[in-house]
Parts: sequence; C-alpha cells; structure tokens
Amino acid sequence: MTDPRPIGVFDSGVGGLTVLREIVRRLPAESTVYLGDNARAPYGTRSDDEVLRFTRQAVDTLVERDVKLVVIACNTSTAVALTDLRRRYPLPILGVIRPGAAAAVLASRVRRVGVIATPATVRSHAYFNAIKEENPAVEVYEHATPAFVPMVEAGLLSGRDVEATVRDALAPLLGERDASGEFIFPLPSSARIDTLLLGCTHYPLLRPILEAVAGDHVAVVDSATATASALVDLLAMNGLDVPGPVDRAIHLQLTTGDASAFHDLARRLFGEGFADVQTVALQGSAA
Amino acid sequence: MTDPRPIGVFDSGVGGLTVLREIVRRLPAESTVYLGDNARAPYGTRSDDEVLRFTRQAVDTLVERDVKLVVIACNTSTAVALTDLRRRYPLPILGVIRPGAAAAVLASRVRRVGVIATPATVRSHAYFNAIKEENPAVEVYEHATPAFVPMVEAGLLSGRDVEATVRDALAPLLGERDASGEFIFPLPSSARIDTLLLGCTHYPLLRPILEAVAGDHVAVVDSATATASALVDLLAMNGLDVPGPVDRAIHLQLTTGDASAFHDLARRLFGEGFADVQTVALQGSAA
Repeated sequence: MTDPRPIGVFDSGVGGLTVLREIVRRLPAESTVYLGDNARAPYGTRSDDEVLRFTRQAVDTLVERDVKLVVIACNTSTAVALTDLRRRYPLPILGVIRPGAAAAVLASRVRRVGVIATPATVRSHAYFNAIKEENPAVEVYEHATPAFVPMVEAGLLSGRDVEATVRDALAPLLGERDASGEFIFPLPSSARIDTLLLGCTHYPLLRPILEAVAGDHVAVVDSATATASALVDLLAMNGLDVPGPVDRAIHLQLTTGDASAFHDLARRLFGEGFADVQTVALQGSAA
Repeated sequence: MTDPRPIGVFDSGVGGLTVLREIVRRLPAESTVYLGDNARAPYGTRSDDEVLRFTRQAVDTLVERDVKLVVIACNTSTAVALTDLRRRYPLPILGVIRPGAAAAVLASRVRRVGVIATPATVRSHAYFNAIKEENPAVEVYEHATPAFVPMVEAGLLSGRDVEATVRDALAPLLGERDASGEFIFPLPSSARIDTLLLGCTHYPLLRPILEAVAGDHVAVVDSATATASALVDLLAMNGLDVPGPVDRAIHLQLTTGDASAFHDLARRLFGEGFADVQTVALQGSAA
C-alpha cells in the first residue's frame, strides 16, 4: 500500500520551511505542498480564537489540494489547534510538539529542560504537558521569547543586535551573566537546565547564536528534525509512503502574502530550492 | 540512586486495585500506599470541578505520606486533572491514559480503536488525543458506558443481568445483533473496530463478559498492565526504583469510606492481599 499524493505542510510563515527542508531530505520521493500564511504571520502573539480560525482555513486549503496528510509545522498552531483539527478532518495530522518533546527528553541527562516558544505556545503549556507525558520526572521551564519570530521573518539572523536580543531573552532561563558576557549562574545547580528546546520552527534559523549564548553545557534541540523522523515512521506504519522514484517528487509553495517576497525571504534564509511559489487566498471554514 | 519511599496509587474507588495488582506483580520490592475515595465514588458522572478538587485532596494526602511518586489509577482523574496536578506538585505523576492508548495502538491492525469509559473521560477526549499522538492515522470511537462502575463497585461481575447491560452498552460501538445474540454488523467493514480499549480501571473486572460480547475479532486491551509497565520504565529511567529485598515491601490501603466494606469488596473482587485497610479523611487543598 502506497499513496502518491503530496504531504501538506503548514506554517504561519516561513519558519516551517525548517521542517520542510528536513522532510525533503529524509523523504526525497515524497511530493509536498507548503502553505505559509505570511499575510497574517506571526501567530504567536494572536488570540487562540484567531489561531484556530486561521489554521482551519489553511488546512481546508491543503485538503482541497488533495494532500494525504498534514504536518502542522507551526508550534503555535499545534499547541492551540491540533486537537480540534484531528476531530475535524479525517486525514492524519502530525504536529511538531510531541516529536520535539521526545527529542528533548532523550537529550537531557539531568532531567531539566528549558523551552523557548511564542507567548501562545507557552500559554498553552503544550510542551510542559508533552514532556511530562514522555517522562513525568523531567522538570520543565517554559519561557516566551516573542521578539524572535519578527526578527527571523525580517531576515535578521546574526549580528550584534540579534545577539543582544537573544542574550536578554534567555537570561531568565539561563541565569545572569557577568561583565565579560560569561554566565555566572546565580541559580543553584539543582535549577540549571542542560537542554534548551526550540519550541518554534523559526528558531532553528537562530541556532548558531542560541548555541553560543546557551553555552557548551546546554544541548540545543529543535523540533524540525524530530518531526521529520516522526513523519518517516508515520508514513511507514500506515502504508502511506511513496517508495520512489525520487525524480517524480513535486514541491509547491503557497503563500497568502506576496509570492516574490516569500521567494526572496526563503532563498535568503534557506538558499535555493523554492522555485514554484504561488499566492493563494485562504477560504473555507472561518467558523 | 534508589528511593525506598512508597509509590502512591490513587483511584476514586476500588477499580485502581487492578493497577495496584499489576504494580505489585511487576515491582515486588516496592512499597505502596493505595488511596480509594470510596465515600465520593464514582467520579465518572461528576463535574470536572469536583473531580479536580477531590483529586487534589487525594494527592495532598498521599504526599503527606511521603510517597516518591503518584500513579493516578483513575481514568476520570487522569483525563480531567493530570495536567493540573503536574503543575501543582513537584513529584512525578503518572496517569493511565497514555499507557493504555499506546497499548491499544500496538494491538490494532486495521487502525480502528473503540474506547469505552466514563462520561467525564469521554467528554475530555483524552483517549482520542492520546491515541492520535501515538498514531494520527488511527480512527478512534469513544463511547461512554456509565452503568459499568456502579455495577463493579456493587460487586456485580457476572450473570445474565450484567451481560445484558454490557451488550446494550456496547451495541452502538460494535453494531446490532440478531435474535440469537450474534452480531450482524450493519456497519460497513471500513467502520469496524478490531480493538476495544477499557478506558476505566474498573472495567478489567468485567473482562470475561466484555471479551465474550466483543467477540473473537476484537482485541480487548486494558490500561492496568500498560500502566504498570510504564511505571517500571519510569522508575528505572529516573533512578527511583528499589532493587530489593522483596520481603521489606509494605502495602497500605486507605479509604475515605468504611474500612471493612473496602476490605470485603476488595477481597471479593481481587481475592486476599488487602490486610491493612485504614479509613482516612481527605484534607488539604480544596481550592
């Protein structure tokens, strides 16, 4: 049993392309349809009602394109809408939170994990709950970093200002630092995390700076790779995969915003490989 | 690293003893404190607010007894209160829903699972969500069977009336039956479940009748064994287990109801092994 239909991948903007990149790398025979709701991004500071409504519209659009399953490559949408979506649509829907949580639990040796995410994701405590389901003895420290998504969507990935923003944002989670920029950890050792989970698909693009700021004693884990691995398992388990050949795979990118702006930003963030970008209007269940 | 303190096990009544029995069998060196809120059982038809409040009081009482972790051996409490409890208490808390969901997903070959549970558990869709997290391609049919808990708590596990109640309760999930009692399945084959998950810790006591009514083509899966296995992993993963010796394990049963009635019912349902039953009043966080 195989299914040649494309895999739908949704994100509020371009951040989900970190997941798409891993999917294409791990599953080269699979076709994909990516949908970025750039016109309304970012979602992380929106109300739950808005996130739910927008995500339903996006999944409606992907379902109209006859995808065989949908990957919600947006942490905010996964946290707020995944349960609703799974009741609403008959096709399999995979989120990014459980795969990311499982990877973080595996990475942590002292069983203390920090999670950075958008305010909406933190508010939902979806990572807290998912990590506790993996191992209830792991301590979870969730922290909202609302400045990161606008920064990434503006193409700002490095430089002194970006680093300063990242340092300030992580200070409550990692502890204070001294004048030379070294962390002095006023926290007792029993409160120090050894794993930082990037609970937003935009954040892997800041990975070099995040790793530098977090320091050598903290493992940085992101959900993009973990979600692609979970997708490989899901397709194989359910007979939904395409065995090949690779050269028939078709990749299409849709955006609710400006197609050439999406193309330019995607190329700037990820390099080449986004040839076919189309603008779409989202319709369907706004209720 | 080991921890000789007892494992706390909570249920609204005596149903959680199905979980305790498996824990003692799998982990004979571990001491246990079981708490049954018999005075206020069953929880399955109570409001979410009541379940939350009662469960907090129960966990407070177990924490006062210096348990090293708590197993919520009550599906209704797990569905309604687990997330709250994990934020409220620093010790590891294990529920019965994820282990049961994982076992059902493994058992189903056609990827269609029926779940029977109390109204409160069904209302929470906790099993739907947990099964979808295990494999989003599995179809889940949840069905409330409110008659079962009062029947078990009354010690009624077999006989013509019990069987009639079970047949009627399962008909919406399994299909209609003809005059001879054979199921005729008006359902199309694409809607037939091959796995029935017992989403209440009382239900394993009805297992012989449930298996007879469900028929040979349906695997009956319960969460008691699955939860004991998850507990073995949890203790080992976190260095919380007791390596032995077995003969030092102490088992204590607490009930909010009448101690001798609890003892009699437990012995009737499970046989001997409940020597030390004490009545307690639940206090603590009623907020």
